[in-house]
Amino acid sequence: MGESEPVLVLGIDPGTAVTGYGIVRKEARNPLALVECGVIRTKPRDALPQRLAEIYEGVTELIRRHKPNVLSIEDIFYARNVRTTVVLGHARGVILLAAAHAGMEIHEYPPSEIKKAVAGTGAATKLQVQFMVARLLRLKSAPQPTDAADGVAAALAFALAPDLPTIESIRRRDYIIPTG
Amino acid sequence: MGESEPVLVLGIDPGTAVTGYGIVRKEARNPLALVECGVIRTKPRDALPQRLAEIYEGVTELIRRHKPNVLSIEDIFYARNVRTTVVLGHARGVILLAAAHAGMEIHEYPPSEIKKAVAGTGAATKLQVQFMVARLLRLKSAPQPTDAADGVAAALAFALAPDLPTIESIRRRDYIIPTG
Repeated sequence: MGESEPVLVLGIDPGTAVTGYGIVRKEARNPLALVECGVIRTKPRDALPQRLAEIYEGVTELIRRHKPNVLSIEDIFYARNVRTTVVLGHARGVILLAAAHAGMEIHEYPPSEIKKAVAGTGAATKLQVQFMVARLLRLKSAPQPTDAADGVAAALAFALAPDLPTIESIRRRDYIIPTG
Repeated sequence: MGESEPVLVLGIDPGTAVTGYGIVRKEARNPLALVECGVIRTKPRDALPQRLAEIYEGVTELIRRHKPNVLSIEDIFYARNVRTTVVLGHARGVILLAAAHAGMEIHEYPPSEIKKAVAGTGAATKLQVQFMVARLLRLKSAPQPTDAADGVAAALAFALAPDLPTIESIRRRDYIIPTG
């Protein structure tokens, strides 16, 4: 893939109830452009396996429709409630699976790195991030709902990386995997 | 499905590195029978999305080959290391997805309930569980490796339930889902 080829980045802010996403196009000599953003909602009354299937299908449908090159996803947020964090891990698992099934390159960023990339500081407030998402993409207002803006911010974290390598040279991040 | 139809139970002990499984057949007027057991291993050097894809494909292949009616899976074990538990949640997520894609009924049991069902007490040791798995299925020795035995024990937790309902009346367990 030559340097002039556009790179489509699918950014995702995972959640069991609401998964926010944004697709950003990066092209040489053009400003970053928002292609689409939105949320995948699941019903709280449905069982977890059903909700995981809906998240997987929602992400797979986005990938089928836009054929993004890269998944940029928020790393796990360690909530005080461990059970909440673990259920969130289930949702992240099926999102990573959808990207793996599509052969996409996958990048993960901790919440603070996404904030820093978009708003200059890892301590940026939600409002500051929303303001900068709108400004960077020349939107009249920040994407709604805020989960969609968080998905766009995740895409921007990759798209704004200073030296965007060509697709072939992107290395997957090594994971720390428990042995058990 | 009539009462005389056999029920095939796929039991799974999830893990990122090693996922143990066992398939047990329950039939009216016949003792419980072990159909197959084993492990799905992933390479520690591979990235998590690749390992999740291998776990998903491994479980999907088992389902395609045996067409089990029920997935009986160990509920999350809250390890002291939160990161370990969260990564395990990713693996459980793709296993639940594989079962949901196959339209299977899904039952979850905490580790202590599996021990109690198989060995009579939630405080049973690993050796006691292995001994009882072998005895209940009339095997000469416990399945190896121990992760496979843990998968079989998960299948037995459902198969040994006192009043096995017909497939149609099995209710899915309600999950507690965070709102975030």
